Amino acid sequence: MSNRYPKVTYTEQGLREGMQIEDANIAIDDKIELLNALGETGLKNIVVGSFVSPRYTPQMARMDELMSKFKPIEGVTYTALALNERGVERAKEYSPPLTIERGSGRPSLSCHMCDVFVRRNTNRSQMQEMENWPKVIARAIESGAKEAGIGANASFGSNFLGDFSVDQYMALLEHQHALWEDAGIKVTQASMGDPMGWVHPEKVEQIIYRVKEKWPEVTHWSLHSHNSRGMAVTSHYAALRALGPEDDLALDGTIGGFGGCPYCGNGRATGMAPTEDTMHMMEDMGIDTGVDLDKLIETVWMAEEILGRQLWGHVSRAGPRPSNGIDGRNVKTKVYDMNAPFVETLEQTKHFKLGSKAYEGGVYPWREPIASPYKDRLDKGLPVFEVDGDWPWKEDWFPKPSN
Amino acid sequence: MSNRYPKVTYTEQGLREGMQIEDANIAIDDKIELLNALGETGLKNIVVGSFVSPRYTPQMARMDELMSKFKPIEGVTYTALALNERGVERAKEYSPPLTIERGSGRPSLSCHMCDVFVRRNTNRSQMQEMENWPKVIARAIESGAKEAGIGANASFGSNFLGDFSVDQYMALLEHQHALWEDAGIKVTQASMGDPMGWVHPEKVEQIIYRVKEKWPEVTHWSLHSHNSRGMAVTSHYAALRALGPEDDLALDGTIGGFGGCPYCGNGRATGMAPTEDTMHMMEDMGIDTGVDLDKLIETVWMAEEILGRQLWGHVSRAGPRPSNGIDGRNVKTKVYDMNAPFVETLEQTKHFKLGSKAYEGGVYPWREPIASPYKDRLDKGLPVFEVDGDWPWKEDWFPKPSN
Repeated sequence: MSNRYPKVTYTEQGLREGMQIEDANIAIDDKIELLNALGETGLKNIVVGSFVSPRYTPQMARMDELMSKFKPIEGVTYTALALNERGVERAKEYSPPLTIERGSGRPSLSCHMCDVFVRRNTNRSQMQEMENWPKVIARAIESGAKEAGIGANASFGSNFLGDFSVDQYMALLEHQHALWEDAGIKVTQASMGDPMGWVHPEKVEQIIYRVKEKWPEVTHWSLHSHNSRGMAVTSHYAALRALGPEDDLALDGTIGGFGGCPYCGNGRATGMAPTEDTMHMMEDMGIDTGVDLDKLIETVWMAEEILGRQLWGHVSRAGPRPSNGIDGRNVKTKVYDMNAPFVETLEQTKHFKLGSKAYEGGVYPWREPIASPYKDRLDKGLPVFEVDGDWPWKEDWFPKPSN
Repeated sequence: MSNRYPKVTYTEQGLREGMQIEDANIAIDDKIELLNALGETGLKNIVVGSFVSPRYTPQMARMDELMSKFKPIEGVTYTALALNERGVERAKEYSPPLTIERGSGRPSLSCHMCDVFVRRNTNRSQMQEMENWPKVIARAIESGAKEAGIGANASFGSNFLGDFSVDQYMALLEHQHALWEDAGIKVTQASMGDPMGWVHPEKVEQIIYRVKEKWPEVTHWSLHSHNSRGMAVTSHYAALRALGPEDDLALDGTIGGFGGCPYCGNGRATGMAPTEDTMHMMEDMGIDTGVDLDKLIETVWMAEEILGRQLWGHVSRAGPRPSNGIDGRNVKTKVYDMNAPFVETLEQTKHFKLGSKAYEGGVYPWREPIASPYKDRLDKGLPVFEVDGDWPWKEDWFPKPSN
């Protein structure tokens, strides 16, 4: 199946988008331990935090300690957010292991569709963001860039200005496109952003279809969405379905789905797509994520331990869909014991990782042990249903047409 | 937009699927209060609980008290689950207000694809479920039925037997279809079920496309899915997108997304699609749900109060995407004050319903009050962007092509 989907670049944002809205007093050693564990999961792109003023983001005050203590894993790209020159300079001190040039490398025009949000978030206006466009274009021409990007943040709407229609998003992109055309540089990239959790899968699809129809040469995509209204994973799915193997797609999320910022109006309720849920969804679409789900779930449990509360994701609670051993699926969790007792609480449900001791002592209501000919087949390595064969269709008990 | 989507019949399952996995000692008066509040939300189909033996489902022991005390709302269809004749007899005592004939009225062949789950859950085997098929068909012929249904529960896979492929699901349905064909009754209905949270949106789409291709006369659909791996809402979206206006679709979920059963292996981690998230998603697809989101969110908060913990849904935390007053959206929540201070905690985020007192005293980091020409436009009732007009494209500060 994977040959029908775009190439996905997934970035884990927990240490940045997640931690920036959490208690500033979380021990830096806990964050380092979490970052080290994330490096072992197979995730290939990890944001370590942000180099910003500690005055209003005290959560990031000890970035230097984090950078000097954590253990970078080879093959993982570590990045950090920097909002100004000072931040970039600080980040450069730690490169490597930090990668400073983030993103595609293509010069890109962007702004926030919500002028109010950008003023609240970065003390700049949308107009100041736009003022930068001619400079971006001049530098692109100077450096001989062959491809460029268009896009807008807060693409779908704003908690302060309301809904932005797909027509409005497209109108903005058309004006950006005209600027690149004027400069003689081909546009091959489009971005969608969503700091306030307005993303809707239907809009994601419509945007992709309309951009593709208008500018078929756009094949590089990114979608940074938040989960305030529970639409982030669904929007990932919509983007994966709407794009094809000729495209690449950058997606962001956080383990457990935590995250947000104090400026957007929803704080910790903002969240992001839980990384483990997106990875699990993609794996069962035949998209090879390279991620060890088992280790990824451990990092969610670790984050929850650090934060002292349950996060939003699901796969860390119920575990991955277990493998029956003959399905060729890359999942460590095996199908459950059919004679497991009642499983009721979240603690008992941890049996998928901790084994039967997690549900020990649970109610066992059956007079005789559960047994099934289907399970017998599985134990012999036979498929549970034979699509073109005899089982169970030719068994005596399987109802057959009379004629 | 709504004319491209199927007609949706949504059933709220919180009092049944939700409460059956919760503490048996929850006060019946709390459940009655919750049921009464649900009746006021605009939800049209509500399951009140199940008439089952209290021995292994003590959560449903006081159904008689609930039935005699709750206040049915006119126009709402109330149903209850009954697994055997005794249960049906008990339910009949309360009809009205209970509606006993549940479902489409079309005779339907169904079984669980997972023989192990059905044995654990109802002490019957898949073979016993199938034994019933010839009787269903005989009764259908006798009553002169013109249309019939096919389908399978645990359509996508099982925690005890593993993955069921779309090919396997289709093979089972083909055999069912042959039985109806043999009886001369047209198949117009197909059902998907998912007691163990194996649903995947890609499989939902594939099933719909393949059934439609094979039997285009199938236009009545149902999808009962659980949320163990966070795919229930995404699967609702996939079904809505794959079906058309010629179809109808029955969907189930629970306020807050709680639910599960002790037999499935994931207990409370099973969950269902949070009703408020599905409703909110559908409203912004132009599907008129008839639901008052504000009241619906109140029932989620009420359920959380009763259960003593936060549930899974998102729209109850961040609130609906607020309306800017000129978008024609049916949402009570209005865009937020652009000079609201920091909003960080979930308690502060309740401002979307409780007003500014929820975030009173929060950090206000800006030297000057936030102001924006976009907000000025909104206050004058003007669109924030003029797709075919001048704003902001002709403003001095908007970058323009040089040629």
